[in-house]
Order: sequence, then structure tokens, then C-alpha cells
Amino acid sequence: MISVEEARTRIIQGLRATTAQVVPLPEAWNRVTAKPILARLSQPPQDVSAMDGYALRAKDGSRDAKLRVIGSAPAGHPFQGCVGPSEAVRIFTGSIVPQGADAILLQEDARTEGDAVVVQESVTQARHIRRAGQDFLAGDEVVPAGKRLTARDIGLAAAANHPWIVVHHRPRIAILATGDEIALPGEPIPPGGIVSSNAHALAAIVQAASGEPIVLPIARDDSEAIAAAADAIATTDLLVTTGGASVGEHDLVMSGLRARGLELDFWKIAMRPGKPLMYGRLGSVPVLGLPGNPVSALVCAILFLLPAVGRLSGLTAEPVSVTRAILGAAVKENDQRADYLRATLEWREGHAVVTPFPVQDSAMLRNLARAGALVIRSPHAPALQGGAQVDVIRLDFLGV
Amino acid sequence: MISVEEARTRIIQGLRATTAQVVPLPEAWNRVTAKPILARLSQPPQDVSAMDGYALRAKDGSRDAKLRVIGSAPAGHPFQGCVGPSEAVRIFTGSIVPQGADAILLQEDARTEGDAVVVQESVTQARHIRRAGQDFLAGDEVVPAGKRLTARDIGLAAAANHPWIVVHHRPRIAILATGDEIALPGEPIPPGGIVSSNAHALAAIVQAASGEPIVLPIARDDSEAIAAAADAIATTDLLVTTGGASVGEHDLVMSGLRARGLELDFWKIAMRPGKPLMYGRLGSVPVLGLPGNPVSALVCAILFLLPAVGRLSGLTAEPVSVTRAILGAAVKENDQRADYLRATLEWREGHAVVTPFPVQDSAMLRNLARAGALVIRSPHAPALQGGAQVDVIRLDFLGV
Repeated sequence: MISVEEARTRIIQGLRATTAQVVPLPEAWNRVTAKPILARLSQPPQDVSAMDGYALRAKDGSRDAKLRVIGSAPAGHPFQGCVGPSEAVRIFTGSIVPQGADAILLQEDARTEGDAVVVQESVTQARHIRRAGQDFLAGDEVVPAGKRLTARDIGLAAAANHPWIVVHHRPRIAILATGDEIALPGEPIPPGGIVSSNAHALAAIVQAASGEPIVLPIARDDSEAIAAAADAIATTDLLVTTGGASVGEHDLVMSGLRARGLELDFWKIAMRPGKPLMYGRLGSVPVLGLPGNPVSALVCAILFLLPAVGRLSGLTAEPVSVTRAILGAAVKENDQRADYLRATLEWREGHAVVTPFPVQDSAMLRNLARAGALVIRSPHAPALQGGAQVDVIRLDFLGV
Repeated sequence: MISVEEARTRIIQGLRATTAQVVPLPEAWNRVTAKPILARLSQPPQDVSAMDGYALRAKDGSRDAKLRVIGSAPAGHPFQGCVGPSEAVRIFTGSIVPQGADAILLQEDARTEGDAVVVQESVTQARHIRRAGQDFLAGDEVVPAGKRLTARDIGLAAAANHPWIVVHHRPRIAILATGDEIALPGEPIPPGGIVSSNAHALAAIVQAASGEPIVLPIARDDSEAIAAAADAIATTDLLVTTGGASVGEHDLVMSGLRARGLELDFWKIAMRPGKPLMYGRLGSVPVLGLPGNPVSALVCAILFLLPAVGRLSGLTAEPVSVTRAILGAAVKENDQRADYLRATLEWREGHAVVTPFPVQDSAMLRNLARAGALVIRSPHAPALQGGAQVDVIRLDFLGV
């Protein structure tokens, strides 16, 4: 059995980012840049006013000075002349500061008198002027390669004059659920069977990671059926299986895929829920074998599939974000397997409080769905009282 | 000027959730349920084994007892007979416990001898048996109405046998950028003009909130052009404008929309960046007028547009999530306007540390894009030293 960290490292190191494609700016949100975005212009392009008011020469802007207003410069309509002695130009936020002017008289510090304006508060040179390139200069890298684009990045890419963005293509993730006992929702359920929940929950995790899930038909518990299913994956970036990765005699995924040339890396991991986790490669396609148990499958997917899809998408391989929280109830000493306790998450006076469900049965999908966090218990972690600080994975922000 | 909280309340209280639609399960991720999801069956449907091993009568399971193995029950292939005295049935995780049996002998506690099995560790009645309905019972509400569906919820809905899900339709959000000085990326830029970044950044924020953005053509700074643009919004759930909500003489959105019957609710708010925020209603369509300044527009969108799209999507109107963090640098006393400082976010020993950028100019989109958090400064908040705790909005998890 290997540790969670080693498993994640081994999975990630074998994955390469997908190739690049061009998308129009409005489709680039939440995609990962395949090359840096460089500014195609400076912003602001010239010195502009940061406020509504009057542009003038600083030396003319003493209190009680009276200036002749020689024109107006609305945004997008720059004043064409030059501001001379005792002259001013009406100006607005974002307007280009006219030639000759080097100060701004704020609107609220000005009193108009016919065609003139009287200074009520002395101006300061350069104050309320945004210098050309204050935000960015032409050629600046405004977004690096390998970044998932936020809405703010989309704004920045637009401001830098990019109608098209080069991003990695969405990783295509094939998902194969196996088992004689499972049926898709709404289909006839075999005797003693249950409805298959893993494939579509995993597909949603892939969606949450901005990948493209491809749910394969359920494979029966038969090596040949599983091997045949694997033939569908040549054009995908990763095959995820669920079920059949444990050691029981009815676990057939490994033997089925071995018949097609699976090169196994590891298949057992020191964690709970989810000991039977298999990783290998079938030709050029990496294969992640998740447990069949729904809670185990989803917890393993959060730990391993999310960063794997992230890596394929072009991100560096960050483990899922871990934060600190306060235990709402005591926990027992842990054994040799890392444990990921399903827990409620509440806020008390601005602090996150996590309380593990009393029953941690790995078949209880409903408690997992209600959980706000997973409490991480390292191998051999000591018992802790309520109030202790623990590492947690917050589920509320992950979309999973 | 009204407070941020009052503005949010006034905006939200006028919004109603969109109507319902049916989507197939795989399209329901991240959508909001329009009615509760009730389990259509119990899970597990009958008592099942939680482990691989043997099903037997507890009274036969004393150490060293030898039991005749009368059959096998792989998952999906229930054993049809009854387990009698000194008999056992091979069983696997998830298999239905056969009639007559009430205990499980773990595989690792059993030694096989030909057709028999010898008990190595005494069994306990009911142990390692998952009771019918342990996860949920037919009729249970497994997901409430008004919940944004996580991947775990998708799994739960599948397990509860739902191929179709009733969700609210995605709110359609019309976005109107105004200004003579702006051009779309890649298009000719007018003299003294800049590239329009707000419309597409706002569209991405709508996407992050799972709404459907509709970017309208840019309206020139002309009341009639703005009024005409408003005619396009009859079939949308919200109109967002950017620019023209301030008080300068060239701000024309309000006058343009008034010509079409805008009923104004408020138009000024005690915050920075973003004082000129307008809210009203044009016929049945609510109108949110954001400032034209890119940083102001996006910060206001995070505070007001995100919860508005959430409310239209069927969520209750939660303000954006606020957490605590530690200041990495001193901040000055605040004036009467709530301030949202753009700040870097780092992790030090598991604690979030936020450091406001030294320059907070509301035209600096690049700093906003680089920010990991917004530090909230209430009106008249006192000066704070580095190391103090502050309320922050974490941007890294919002997709914005």
C-alpha cells in the first residue's frame, strides 16, 4: 500500500497537458491558457483624468484664480487644442488630458462663471491624472500561461485587445462503470441490483474540473466485456473506471484491461474510504481505477481525479486545497490508513467548525452529499478533542 | 447614499426565481433544483453485506466452527435459497444477505477447507450488514428544492433513480456597455478610446453564477441609442448596464432608460470602488446599472450581480461568502464609504494572509485580476496593524 501523496505524485507525473486550441474570448472563461496573454496596447493609452473636472496648468490653479474654459473633452472625444495660460478644458473620468495641461481641478472644487471657472481649492500637479500605461504597458504579460481564466482575467484580456484566446482543449475523460448489479437511472433494475450512481457523479466531477466527460455503457462483470469497453478510449485523455479495483474474486477490471495490455503502476493505497485504487496505462491512455463504493469513488475522485483533470487541462498539479478548521466533536486515534471523514461545516463567529458524522459508513452517499468538508486524518494521527484544529478539504467551493 | 447591505436587500427582494424546466441528469450539475428530489427506492434495497466474506447464522459463527458453503452471492446475483444451521454462503460487498443469515464472517477471518469454511474469529450478529434503507428510504427527500446540485447530489439523485431533474432555467442576463470611447477587442479603436473590457468580464461573472449572458451591442453615449438598446431586453431576466450611472453630464443611461419608463429605486451607494450604482425596473425587467470603471464594475458585480443571478436561479439570497483572514500590512482608518481593498492572498502555516495592494486606483484592472481576496473595510472602520483579523471575500473559489 502506498500513501495518498505518493499516489497523487505518481498519477500526476504521467500526465501531460492537452494540446492548444483557439477560442473566442467569451468562451475562454474557466479555460486554461496555453500561452501567455501579452498586452497589445498600453492602458491607459495616454495620460487620462481620474475624475470629472477641468484640465489646466498646475501653475494656474491657485485658489480664486479665474480660468477661461476653451473647450470640453468627453471620453472618446479628445480636445484637439492646447491648454494655455489661464485656460481650462472641461474633462471627465477617462478623458485624455489635453496638451499643455498637467493638473485636474475637481468638479466639486470649481465654480462656473459664464464661460469661466473659478478655482475653489488649489490644484496639485499630476494629481488625479492616470499616467499612460499605469495599468499595463504594450507587451506586458497580463495573464501567464497555465492559468485558469477568471472573469477578471477575461476583462483583462479584453482590455489588452484580445478577441481570441489560446487555451488547452478540455480533457476528454472516459468513465466506465462496471458491475452486473447496476442499472442506469430509470432503467429496469436487475434482481438484487442497485441504480448506478458513480458514473454520473464522476462525470459531474469532471465537469466541475472543466473536463469533458464521456460516460461509456456499463460493462458487465466479465473480463471480455471490460476489455471491449476499453477499446473505446483511444481518443480520450484518461480512462476512469469504477468498481472492480479491489482484490475480491469478482473484481474484473484489472484482468479485463490486462488482456488489452494494461501496464499497472499501483493498485492499493493507504486511505479510507478507498483502499482499492488502481493506476496504470493502456497504450498511451492513463487509467485511474476507482473503487465501486460510491463514497469511496467520490472521495478518491476529489483527491486524485480533480488534480488529474487539472493537470491535463494545463494547470500545474496542485493537490486539492486544504484549509484549517475547528473540530466540533472529538475524533478517535487513527490507524495506518489516512482517513477522510465526512463532516458538516458551520460558521461560528467567523470560524469554520467541522463535525464528522457519527457513522462513517462508506456506502452512505447521502451523508457525503450533506457534508461541507472532509476532515483529513493522517496515518496514526492521535485522538483529538472538540475544539482542536484540523486540516480539512472544503467541499462547498469545489462544485463537487 | 445607501449602504451595501441595504442595496443588496433592495435588489434581491425584487427578484423572483425563473420558471422550471426538465433536464437530463447529466445536464443537472450546477443547476438549481426547482422541486425536492425524493428517493424512488430504498438504498440499500435490502440488507446487504458491507464486506467480502460469508453470510451465516450468528449462532453458528463461534470460533473453530466448520460450516458447509452451500452457494455464492456475487453482487447482482442474490442467493435464492435459505441459510440453515451450520451453513454459509459466499458473499461480497454489496451482495444481498440471504434469507436465514444474520451475520457476516469476514474473508480474512475464514479458512476454507474444500467445500467448507472454518471460523477463525467469532462473528457478531448484524455486524458488517448494512440495513435496508440505511442510506435512504423510498420517499425520503434526498435533495431539497432550491439547492445548487453538486457532483455528490448528482450521484445521490442517480442512486434515488432519477433520470430527469426539474431545475430552474438559467437566468438570461442582458449586458449593455455604453460609451463613445469604447470598442470591442480587435475592432478599430476610436481616437482617445479604449477597448471595452466590462461587457465580457460581466458575461463571465454571469457564467460563473451559471446564468446565460447576452452581450448587447455597445450603445453610443446618446440617450436615444441607449433607449433603443433597452428594447432588446423584454425576454431577459435582468438588464445589467455598465457606464453612465454616475452624475456627470455625459452619463446618459438613466436618462435613456427613463425615456422607456425606468422606475428608479436607488442610484448611489456608500462604497468604494463603485459609488454610482443604479437599480430600478423597466417594465417587468429589473435593471442593475454598474459603474463604467472596470474595477468598480467588477467589484459591484461580485457584491450584487452574483447574488442577483443566484436568486434568479432559484437560490435564496445569500450575500457572497465572507471569511476571516490576517492582514499582511497595516491599513488606514476608513471614511464613510465601505471599502473593498484588492489584496493578495497567501497561506502561512495554514492561515490566510491578505495584503492590500499599495495603490488601490479603481482603474487598475490588472491588480484586481491578480488579487486573491477583497478586504472589507466597513464605514468608519479604525486603522489596523498588520496581523489583525479582517473580513475578506476570497476570490480564488468564486470563478470570478
